This record gives sequence, structure tokens and C-alpha cells, in this order.
Amino acid sequence: MSEYRGYKGNSLLLLKKSNVKVGDSIKVTEDLTYNGILMPRYEHEDEEHIVIKLKSGYNVGIEISKIKKIELLPSDKKIQESSPKIHSDSSLPKVLLLSTGGTIASKIDYRTGGVTPALTADDLNSAVPELAKIANIDTKVLFSEYSENLLPQHWKQIAEKLDSVANSDYKGIIIAHGTDTMQYTAAFLSFALAGFPIPIALVGSQRSSDRPSSDAALNLVSSAKFVVECNSKGVFVVMHQNESDDLVVCHLGTRVRKNHTSKRGAFQTIGGDPAFLILDKKIHKNLQQEYFKQTKYNPKLNYNTKVALVKYYPGYDPKLFDSIIGAGYKAIIFEGTGLGHIGKSMYQSVKKANDLGLFLGMTSQCIDGRVSMTVYESGRDLLELGIVPLSNMIPETALVKAMWALGNSNNVTDMKKLMMENIASEFSD
Amino acid sequence: MSEYRGYKGNSLLLLKKSNVKVGDSIKVTEDLTYNGILMPRYEHEDEEHIVIKLKSGYNVGIEISKIKKIELLPSDKKIQESSPKIHSDSSLPKVLLLSTGGTIASKIDYRTGGVTPALTADDLNSAVPELAKIANIDTKVLFSEYSENLLPQHWKQIAEKLDSVANSDYKGIIIAHGTDTMQYTAAFLSFALAGFPIPIALVGSQRSSDRPSSDAALNLVSSAKFVVECNSKGVFVVMHQNESDDLVVCHLGTRVRKNHTSKRGAFQTIGGDPAFLILDKKIHKNLQQEYFKQTKYNPKLNYNTKVALVKYYPGYDPKLFDSIIGAGYKAIIFEGTGLGHIGKSMYQSVKKANDLGLFLGMTSQCIDGRVSMTVYESGRDLLELGIVPLSNMIPETALVKAMWALGNSNNVTDMKKLMMENIASEFSD
Repeated sequence: MSEYRGYKGNSLLLLKKSNVKVGDSIKVTEDLTYNGILMPRYEHEDEEHIVIKLKSGYNVGIEISKIKKIELLPSDKKIQESSPKIHSDSSLPKVLLLSTGGTIASKIDYRTGGVTPALTADDLNSAVPELAKIANIDTKVLFSEYSENLLPQHWKQIAEKLDSVANSDYKGIIIAHGTDTMQYTAAFLSFALAGFPIPIALVGSQRSSDRPSSDAALNLVSSAKFVVECNSKGVFVVMHQNESDDLVVCHLGTRVRKNHTSKRGAFQTIGGDPAFLILDKKIHKNLQQEYFKQTKYNPKLNYNTKVALVKYYPGYDPKLFDSIIGAGYKAIIFEGTGLGHIGKSMYQSVKKANDLGLFLGMTSQCIDGRVSMTVYESGRDLLELGIVPLSNMIPETALVKAMWALGNSNNVTDMKKLMMENIASEFSD
Repeated sequence: MSEYRGYKGNSLLLLKKSNVKVGDSIKVTEDLTYNGILMPRYEHEDEEHIVIKLKSGYNVGIEISKIKKIELLPSDKKIQESSPKIHSDSSLPKVLLLSTGGTIASKIDYRTGGVTPALTADDLNSAVPELAKIANIDTKVLFSEYSENLLPQHWKQIAEKLDSVANSDYKGIIIAHGTDTMQYTAAFLSFALAGFPIPIALVGSQRSSDRPSSDAALNLVSSAKFVVECNSKGVFVVMHQNESDDLVVCHLGTRVRKNHTSKRGAFQTIGGDPAFLILDKKIHKNLQQEYFKQTKYNPKLNYNTKVALVKYYPGYDPKLFDSIIGAGYKAIIFEGTGLGHIGKSMYQSVKKANDLGLFLGMTSQCIDGRVSMTVYESGRDLLELGIVPLSNMIPETALVKAMWALGNSNNVTDMKKLMMENIASEFSD
């Protein structure tokens, strides 16, 4: 990266004259005085401001015409301090904390002012001393990736690691994970590890741990309490419910969705209430639903990515669909409109896909509610063309389930059977 | 369609023996007696039940082993009755009601028991006598299609029809439309007809008008009141808010989404409160926001469908993206994860698309919230690769806007300028 990334014109001249570059700790004096890290900028922005990240974690833009002075500060050394040692208490249960990366395992990169995933599970553990009062926590770093970079092969690695401790003395498992694709990983683990003997909690944070509004510590502590006390099998996503610090919710891994880009309470259970609430540090089970099937543990850890998600919209060109078929895909999950529809313009291509033996499943881009393909003529036509309605399975869960079912079946008939079986409450009342 | 569509084995034998076929009005006697229409069935269903649609609009399955008798009833003639004449009142304002099809313009097809779009705008008008007390309504049928079958060419036809009455004495326009793709049409009209001198209300219903729970009449009457009384320009979607009959809401055409497959209150404004409420038949404007730009009316009615929506997910194969580029697409709207991310595996393909001059816009599959691509390294990388963040434009609106902007520009530079201009509150605070 350039030392002046994104700066040009007048702002670039000022930075060079002041002998500071992106990533430096600087003090900027105008009418007010700002201390912070000089941030990079991007080409669509103007030349008349510089941007610094304050200690609070927030960025401010400062108009250069008002700047009286820019001074270089000595860089912040505090983040180099080593972690305190954790002492174990043999009366507490054992929990395994796996780290995969993400904001919860992030710190600010003081070179760029950006956030990078770097904390180890050990760092996490020692950064949140309350954890040691709940459980003796073993830690293991699997990856250090933002979750947008995780792929099905990472899902499988996580599942294999968990399978290897299925018969251990752990009371539960916590997985620190980026929030971007947490719901996809949670869905995969729900299917691959159905019946796993102890609870698995995926936990993340929407705000990095060096920001005052961070939800990292609360979510971590809550997930530890949850896996120790819930007395339930299953895969859950444990996240803040809202801006309050009192309420953390545990969403079932197949019914959860990230529905806001930045709010702390971004995660929601679709089509029902969450499985558990953690209110004032007490675990409350949702008694309306019985999520936890008495499935015998029988891991199925494979996947096959020859599954495409096709979101239908007016003007969607059936030729795009034809090229997916042509590329050898074995299954399509449609995000149809409303109750599960796609336009007539698609019928011929769908017929071809069905004749070729592809699995064709229907979900709805409405996200909430249930597809129902016998209400309208369009739905009936699509049933005749071989499309299988997937009730209220959410589209992303259906996609992951199809990859998993395809990877663990010998043929499309077996795959279809797995798709229609309610394995981890992906179908709900 | 077969006269016994979907029936097989024992149920088929019983129907043949009783001399009734799909679409017949029948009386079934078991412990209870049911009168209704014999419905078709689908192959994945069993052989031991027949299904009839009751007058209430609901279907019931009856176990054939319990059936004592099936009798053919004379078919229901009432739906053949002609509509009453509407008298006009010269003191009332004039409103144009266009019908495009959809559930609001549907009646049950008494042959199949299914719902088909058949009512004309005249039928609608006369079926809801309250309309005549609010306005003198001219009616025009444009199409009779479920909205999953509407295409960008239909959007343009609607826009052309509206443009032709821009200087008329109408006080407002109502468009009866299927709910499946209503948000796409509303977005197109918002861009194509920005600054249109009178209000345009798209209205639909989630339950057909021959069902007791239908919201068709309330939505229609509310939309008529709205266009007559709102004193606002703009394109709106006027729909029920919830299960109560008191509250109808008017969503801005660029900020609305169908978020439930079947609930009456399926439509929601994303990222804010609705523009107007109609509570107890009174219009309440949302004073927190100023949605209505003083745009001069300057219709731009073209579109270009060489735009693809790409929803990113773990395991998305960049080769699928390459095939979109190869097919000559000019613009991509990404539904990224979280704050606007796609995985590193996509970078090379994105770079190629950018080098070829495609417009690459980023929205979030979280739907709510704002993309923000300077927080994480991933976002910064994607900005460097030429992806343009589209703030809080909802993905479907961004797709429609890109089709519209491409159709009304000479080159990608002009298109990008239109994309970043806030034309109809597609960007909001």
C-alpha cells in the first residue's frame, strides 16, 4: 500500500510537508486538537480533507484549509503488552474455544488504521477475565480469516475438529467467527454434526474489541455461560439482541440471519422466537418450541459445491440459468418471489434442468414466511416442472443444506430425501 | 389439465366411481358434510385423501376411507353476474386506476379451484362501492398477469401510459399490481418518472377478494384516499400494515420490500419509517423525513437488462461470475455479506470485470443497514478493485436502478453518475 494511499492534490501536499504518512499517530491542530491515526482514503473522495481515526474508534474528516499544524506522535505501544496468565480452577467445567477470525478476534492495525483479524483464542480468553470464572477454557486457533473469506472447505475443517472432540470431557464448544457468513457456517455444522453430544455456540462481534461500543466481551461471556448451563444439544449463534447490554440471544443455527450491516443486534431468528435468551446473565429456554431432536450422533462431514443459488427477478435472463446447467451444477436453490414463483420466461430452462436430473428447490426472497406452491397457477406449473417447495427453510440455509446433502449422497434421489428430512429444525412450525 | 390431475390409486377410483372431476362443485359426506370445489393434487402427495376448496377459500383434505358419499352439485353461477353501474359525481376529483393483474385483480378459477388474475379494473371499481365516494375513477386494463411474469418491458409500458397522462386533470394514479414483484415495478417507476406531477400508488392484496381475510378492498380504498388527499409527488406502495383493519401504510417506491410470503402486512419500508400512514381513514405524513424532491419532471423511460444481481455466498464459484462477464453484461450489482464484502476468491474475476469497464455496485444481503467499505481490509481491497459502494440502497432497488441508468446513458461514466445521484430517496439518511 502507498504511504499516502488515496490522498491527492492539496491534502497530499500537506501530508508530505508535515512529514507524516498513513498509519502514523498524529496530532492535528485546527480550532480543536485531534489525536489519532492517519487513515487511507479512496479515489472517489475529495482532496480537501484528511481523515484520522480517534482513540474512540471513530473516524473524523478534517478540512485542510482549517488545519494549523500536523505533528507526528510516538506510536502507541500499549497493544504490544503481553497477555496476563490465566489460572485454571478444577471445580469448573471444561470448554473448548476455537478461533476462526473475524471482528471478535480483531484489533486495529495501527499501520493502516483498519481492522485485521489477529487475536488468538488465548488473547481472547485473557482479554476477558470473566471467562475464567465460568469455565476452564482450552483455546485453539483454526484460522485467522474474516468470514467473507471462509469457504466450504473451512466449514469441513471446523466440523472435523469438532468431530475429533465429540467424546471428550468438554461441556461445550465456542467458535469465534466473523459475522458476515456466520449463518452459513452455523447451518453447515447443524447438518454435518446433527446429534453432536454437547452444545456448540458460534459467537462474533459487530464492533471490534478496541472500540467502546464493542459487544465482543459480552457475547463471549454469554456464549460460555450458555454452553455450560443450557443442557441442550444443537448448534447456536449467540449474539447481542439490541443496544442494551442486558440481553443476548441464542439463535438456532439453521434459522438465523444477519439482517443489518452494522447494528449490534443484527442477527435475528427467522420465523419464530430465538431458542434461548440470556437475560441478566440467566439462561431462558424458549418453551414454545422443541428444537432439539434426539438425533443419534452420526456425522456426515462432506460437501459438494455444485449447487447454485438463483435469485429470480424481472429481467433475469434464462440464458444465465442455462449456463449454470451447462457448467455441470447438480442442484439449484431458487430464491423465488412471494410464495415461491419464477416467471414463465424461465419454464423452458427449468424443464431442461429437471430432465437432466438436477435437484430444483424453491425458497422465497421474502425471507420470512413459507413457500406454498399450490395457491396460484404459477406455483402449480412449477411443481409440474419438478421444482420442490422447501417450506420455510431460509434461502441461505437451503443452499448450505443442498451442498451438504449433495456431498453426502450417492445420487439425486438420496439427496432429495435428505433435503426433505427435518434434520436441524431447518423446517419449523 | 387432466380431469383427475394428481389423483391416483384409491382416490382416483373413488372419484371416477362418484362421477366427479377436478373443478366440480361437490358435496362430500363423512361424519361431517363438506361443500366445495374438488382441487387438483400433486405427485408428491398420497393416494388416501381428496382435497376440496371450501367457500371460505381454504382447502381441506378428506381421508377417503371415511367418506360415505360424494355428490355432484350444480356449479356456482353467482360469479357470472354482471357488475352494477357506477354513477359519477362531478364534485369529486378524477383518478386513473390501471390494472396489471395480480391477486387484487383475481378471482378463483372455478374449474381448477386455483386463483387466476381475471378481474378488470372496472370489475374492481364496481366491487368496491366506497371508491365511488372518494373519486370518479377511470379504469384501464394494461395486462392481466401475475407479477412474477412481469418483465422490464411491462415496466416501460406502464411508464409510457403514465407519461401520456402527466398533463391530464387526474388528481392521482392507482396501479393494481401483483405483490410478488411490486417493489421492482415501484422502483422502476420511481426512477423513470421522477418528478411526475401527481402521486402514483401501487396497490395489491395478499389474499384474493373472494376470501374473507382479503385485504383487497381496504387497500384499494386507502390508495384512492391517499392519491386524492396526500398532496405529494412520488411513487408509493400502499398496503396493509398488519392483521388489523385500521392501518394502511404508504411505502416509498425505492425503499420497500416484500418481507413475508403470506402475511397481510408483508411489505415494509427498509431503513426508516413509512412515508405515510393511513390510520382510521386519515392520512398522516412522516414528518421526520423529506422524501419528495422538487425534481422537475423529465421522464427517462428506457432500460437495459444487461445487469446481473450476484449474491455472494461461501463456495460461490468465480467461474459463474466469469460467465456473466463473458455474456456481455455491462453492470453487476453485488449482494455482498455484512458491510459489503465478497471473498478473496472473487478478486481476480472482479478485476477483470473492472478492466472491461463494467459498472460494479455493492449492496448487502443483510438488506437493512448501510454498506461501508472502509472499515475492514476486505472492503478497502474491493474499493481498490473498482467496486462502488451503494450505501443503503436495497439490493432489488439497486438492480432496477442499474437497468434504468444503463438504458438512459450513453456510456458507463454517465451511468455511474446516475447511479450515485439520489433520484428518488433510494439513498436515505
